[in-house]
Amino acid sequence: MTQATVFQTLEAVFGDRFTTSPSDRENHGRSESYFDTMPPDAVVYVRDEQDCIRLVEHCYTNDLAMIPWGAGTSLEAQAAAPRGGVCVDFSQMNRVLDIDTDNMLVTVEPGITRKTLDHALRHTGLFFPVDPGADATLGGMASTRASGTTTVRYGTMRENVRALRVVTAAGQVIETGTRAAKSAAGYDLTSLFVGAEGTLGLITQITLKLHPRPSAISAGRVAFDHFDAAVQTVIETIQTGLPAARIEFVDTATVEAVNAYGNLNMPHLPHLLFEFHGDTDSVIKYAQDFQALCHANGGQDCAFSNQTEERTALWAMRHDAYYAIRALHAGARAIVTDICVPLSKLAQAVSETQHDIAQSRLHGPILGHMGDGNFHAILLVDPDHPTDMATARALSDRMAERALALGGTCTGEHGVGLGKRKFMTAEHGAAWSAMGAIKTALDPKGLFNPGKLVP
Amino acid sequence: MTQATVFQTLEAVFGDRFTTSPSDRENHGRSESYFDTMPPDAVVYVRDEQDCIRLVEHCYTNDLAMIPWGAGTSLEAQAAAPRGGVCVDFSQMNRVLDIDTDNMLVTVEPGITRKTLDHALRHTGLFFPVDPGADATLGGMASTRASGTTTVRYGTMRENVRALRVVTAAGQVIETGTRAAKSAAGYDLTSLFVGAEGTLGLITQITLKLHPRPSAISAGRVAFDHFDAAVQTVIETIQTGLPAARIEFVDTATVEAVNAYGNLNMPHLPHLLFEFHGDTDSVIKYAQDFQALCHANGGQDCAFSNQTEERTALWAMRHDAYYAIRALHAGARAIVTDICVPLSKLAQAVSETQHDIAQSRLHGPILGHMGDGNFHAILLVDPDHPTDMATARALSDRMAERALALGGTCTGEHGVGLGKRKFMTAEHGAAWSAMGAIKTALDPKGLFNPGKLVP
Repeated sequence: MTQATVFQTLEAVFGDRFTTSPSDRENHGRSESYFDTMPPDAVVYVRDEQDCIRLVEHCYTNDLAMIPWGAGTSLEAQAAAPRGGVCVDFSQMNRVLDIDTDNMLVTVEPGITRKTLDHALRHTGLFFPVDPGADATLGGMASTRASGTTTVRYGTMRENVRALRVVTAAGQVIETGTRAAKSAAGYDLTSLFVGAEGTLGLITQITLKLHPRPSAISAGRVAFDHFDAAVQTVIETIQTGLPAARIEFVDTATVEAVNAYGNLNMPHLPHLLFEFHGDTDSVIKYAQDFQALCHANGGQDCAFSNQTEERTALWAMRHDAYYAIRALHAGARAIVTDICVPLSKLAQAVSETQHDIAQSRLHGPILGHMGDGNFHAILLVDPDHPTDMATARALSDRMAERALALGGTCTGEHGVGLGKRKFMTAEHGAAWSAMGAIKTALDPKGLFNPGKLVP
Repeated sequence: MTQATVFQTLEAVFGDRFTTSPSDRENHGRSESYFDTMPPDAVVYVRDEQDCIRLVEHCYTNDLAMIPWGAGTSLEAQAAAPRGGVCVDFSQMNRVLDIDTDNMLVTVEPGITRKTLDHALRHTGLFFPVDPGADATLGGMASTRASGTTTVRYGTMRENVRALRVVTAAGQVIETGTRAAKSAAGYDLTSLFVGAEGTLGLITQITLKLHPRPSAISAGRVAFDHFDAAVQTVIETIQTGLPAARIEFVDTATVEAVNAYGNLNMPHLPHLLFEFHGDTDSVIKYAQDFQALCHANGGQDCAFSNQTEERTALWAMRHDAYYAIRALHAGARAIVTDICVPLSKLAQAVSETQHDIAQSRLHGPILGHMGDGNFHAILLVDPDHPTDMATARALSDRMAERALALGGTCTGEHGVGLGKRKFMTAEHGAAWSAMGAIKTALDPKGLFNPGKLVP
């Protein structure tokens, strides 16, 4: 069948939820970050699992690629369509299917965003902790193995997805797990699909682990003369067993940006931002114990509070850091890099990255998830400057190579997509071929999100 | 090549570490639980990764099956050799390769046992928490996705293996992860090999996550008139965010057995056994909060202590429960069943299982890991009674079917091996075929631990 005939069939099945309009295609070919627009040939707005099954059957019969789309917030062009095909838009497949407070589970469709989910859980006393910066969909978050500021305590999507329903290449629906808290019954397919970036099938349902919403929270910030001392403090914090819920850091350049943006007067020094969850007595004690570790390592102005307003202001500052950095250069594009190293190597990785950026003509403030050893340089690129983009890409590449040399990974939380494929051989060696063999086994025609992640 | 010729080659390579002696074969064909002895044709004692590579190359070239062997403590015949082949004995490959306290990681060879590892970590202030009953090897624990009494707080092997080195069918060594705390760089091969029961390759190195050894521990026990009330207490404990490190349960039949065995006088009621980790103030507070929840749910005689002696006595009782139960019938064999259900279904699953056992002529005390919804009935089988074994198997099957009907899994922690293969279709449906496709992709000749786990 020609593509035109196949598209006629899809239109007959999906009605006005199938479209080849240029604006729809264009919107679904754009990505954040530095990639060119790569539009699909068509877009299908799926509404339920049955839609997904029919779509996979049609596409698999007619050799048509399928690219899943959540909120379009991925940073490595995971949802771009470099080889055309059909974009599978999940935004209308966004229901909460079941809230099970006794077992602390929620089952959702993949198109729900994390803020909508948070709202739906508000009355339960439970919450879902994984919080990437963007208001991403849970399907996208599962597919990129997303994490965020709370990973040091609650884990990434790997630790927080209990089970999935997935439509496979054969158009079959598989369930990758049960509602039980653990299982030793065979290969861990849940973990295989989490982080697979849509290359192995279409996720249609996600069962997520929930956590008790803490009755009290303390949060604060502390400055250090040297970044090494901040890292040492965090190593000691974790070794002591202090259950930090968040340990973020911002470098001096980021502090300067947020000071200017928010009219603040934080000292021009690297800072840790921290948060503890528990009951009122515990969170004050945790923060005091943390304060003692900070002081012992030369931390300055360690202030914390268990009041909602002050905490909200602190995290608003952290959340706005990206916009504050962008505001340094009106009109600049921001390239958000992403590496993760063992904590003991974090000071070295940050300092060498800062040195590289200082040698360039780019601004590149650094911030990250200290507890995980994961950080981002936000590289500001003047679109009119002839060499800025190449410089930014070179800096990002150098960061990834450094991460690998230090025993880390080329991506802590943004995933591979198109952007990090070139590091897969260096990071995985022969293990990348094993990933390719798995891909071929589960998607023999290579129609699920082709060109991404695997060889 | 004939098998005799292949064996001559292996003998030339491995010297006296290759053996076909009947006693060695017999020892490596025995398993715990109810399986007949299924000896391999030969045993190779590997000493390092190079040995493993050479062995895989020889076996793969000559179509010889390889069955990994740790301490022989698996309960579903994971290390039996139903189709012959070479048993790969890892007991001499048992070194601690690296202790990295800053990043809280330890790298070991697969043949080290958990007690030896615990001893090696004693001076570090850190510990490895996963504690199946037996002194299993870490390779075996990784391969069966083992868990134990501390899973409710620290997770199973899935959550505690950071990375593996594995020899693949091609004789290549792959690394499945880095030393970084998280990664979004491709398929989660670590999670795929954890729980694969040796069906995808030979694990040669394991990097494990360590945890701070708590400075204080409180532990205790509490009795309930009804098991439902105990379950409700645990649901509330978890929902409240009380960080229990252990929440075990023993039923009345188990209490009777341990009373007789240890000359104790626990009330003839179902009991919860619990433990909290932290500093002195915290663990007392946690235990008091837990005590309050117990009392609100009708718990009786809730006693706890933060003294080492009393805690040791408590867990010795729990540890000895298996032997206490066996002592009920001298000469009986013990069949240890294993299912896991959502916590909200645990009371129903236990009560219906007790009912089934009461209808039989077997003794079958029940105990388990309440926090995970995982429990075991220890079925005592008189080897001389004509129908006991069939009755025990039928009871075990009925438990597995019930677990699936209640949204759980046919094995919480013992794995599939030969014993639970028959439930794979019921538990996984089409997902079992996906597992088979992965197996074929990574082990095209089906030589890694054939007959286990996959179709």
